[in-house]
Amino acid sequence: GGSTGVLRDELGVLPPGDVRQCLVALSDSSRLMRSLMNYRFENGGLGGHSFGNILLCALEKVTGSFETAVEEVGKILSIKGKVLPVTTNKVRLHMLLENGKLLKGEREIHLSNEIHHGYKNIYLEPFPKADTHAIDEINNADLIIFGPGGLYTSLIPNLLVEGISKALRDSQAKKIFVVNLMNKKGQTPNFNVSNYLNEIKKYTGKDIFDYIIVNKSTPPKELVEVYANEGTLVENDLHDVRVILADLLSSNLKEIPKGDTLMKRNLIRHDSEKLAAELMSIVSRL
Amino acid sequence: GGSTGVLRDELGVLPPGDVRQCLVALSDSSRLMRSLMNYRFENGGLGGHSFGNILLCALEKVTGSFETAVEEVGKILSIKGKVLPVTTNKVRLHMLLENGKLLKGEREIHLSNEIHHGYKNIYLEPFPKADTHAIDEINNADLIIFGPGGLYTSLIPNLLVEGISKALRDSQAKKIFVVNLMNKKGQTPNFNVSNYLNEIKKYTGKDIFDYIIVNKSTPPKELVEVYANEGTLVENDLHDVRVILADLLSSNLKEIPKGDTLMKRNLIRHDSEKLAAELMSIVSRL
Repeated sequence: GGSTGVLRDELGVLPPGDVRQCLVALSDSSRLMRSLMNYRFENGGLGGHSFGNILLCALEKVTGSFETAVEEVGKILSIKGKVLPVTTNKVRLHMLLENGKLLKGEREIHLSNEIHHGYKNIYLEPFPKADTHAIDEINNADLIIFGPGGLYTSLIPNLLVEGISKALRDSQAKKIFVVNLMNKKGQTPNFNVSNYLNEIKKYTGKDIFDYIIVNKSTPPKELVEVYANEGTLVENDLHDVRVILADLLSSNLKEIPKGDTLMKRNLIRHDSEKLAAELMSIVSRL
Repeated sequence: GGSTGVLRDELGVLPPGDVRQCLVALSDSSRLMRSLMNYRFENGGLGGHSFGNILLCALEKVTGSFETAVEEVGKILSIKGKVLPVTTNKVRLHMLLENGKLLKGEREIHLSNEIHHGYKNIYLEPFPKADTHAIDEINNADLIIFGPGGLYTSLIPNLLVEGISKALRDSQAKKIFVVNLMNKKGQTPNFNVSNYLNEIKKYTGKDIFDYIIVNKSTPPKELVEVYANEGTLVENDLHDVRVILADLLSSNLKEIPKGDTLMKRNLIRHDSEKLAAELMSIVSRL
């Protein structure tokens, strides 16, 4: 990513951005603490970096271990649950397009609008081993929720780590796929639910999901127009008992964070309460 | 200061460096937390900044108040006591030398080796008001300890804030001056205890100290030689009942921190336990 990529290149640490977001999401600490973690400096040498990323880097430097750093921030934020990286190997995501162009790193892939013309390969370099704790958690889980997230930059990369796909196939957990709300122009244009499932199946080896949660409601026309340049709504094309159609759209536009330096945040977003209700309804049926 | 000056200029925050050191000194938190606060990034845009400085800046930005930021870090570090800035006005230290040269900022004054030729004036610009909490604490204190520290960069600047000198004069607290171990070449060359007291008296208006703690032991010859370029030992020239002579030198050389970007840390240092014992002996006589 952006700040994450800079910290990684300049300081040789593991990329902290995604882990920070997971930690804050699970945090049970004060509003101030969560604002602090997400605070992004605007100027000078610190410009573009979020405080939470800097904290994770400093702790990795002081403790000598990314995992210990994540654990310590988990304590500071009183998180419920655990945040584990799939791997602690220093890897970089690569994507080789059909036209021979090699995209290096999450950022280049994220920004590309040529992926829909086809790609030959997506891989992590060097080929990483999974963190054994991550494998253990997958083995022992009752429920695994996959998605939403960027198909090539957030979802599939997990499956490129040695041992993760096998663990997902073997785990007795019920597996839920929360499908993205929106497609991404130049990457997943006009993808329907089956397109997402087929892409993921390439890397999991088989269709692993027990439930597929899909949004069924349409955002206000104004928002769809704003988004016309970004991509279309994902529509369901499956007649499958596994599909759960629900209204999952957030109508709370006040909470939209200010422009991120890397990614334009979604205006069309999941409503976390609505999504949680659907997930809990599945849990209650287990 | 160095990192502090950069953060101040780039982010418009109040300078966090000294406050961080006070907070860490009073901290009752884990060793990891204290190492984290003092961890200084080595490379890239963060290079030169200590994590604690960055934390204070981020909290000032998020809360909108330097005092709140200091309070919050105090909580995080479980400090015993309080850390209060003498002022929260945005000021810069200036020193006008006899030769007409104007030194701007703590750093220029710290690095100058012409101060011993004489200076006309030292002042904060703009002339700041004291923080009312600081005045209250001085008024209500039982004991006030002043020093050790750079005479022109750490000690006298406190006395240049409106109301602080008067509060010190009026306070019923016993006041202790802990005299520096070493002089500073080009600034306080061959100063004896009386020279320090006379300089301070210029700004307090009268001799305010009830006790003056002076080191009486001599460091190992090797260290004195290392220091020959930096300055001489401060010697006592007062026959005064207020003077307490004691061995205050640290012999623990293993704890010397790595090179600071701004200040070459003293190899000849106070032993905090020995100094504390002298201070507590005064407390027990109150």
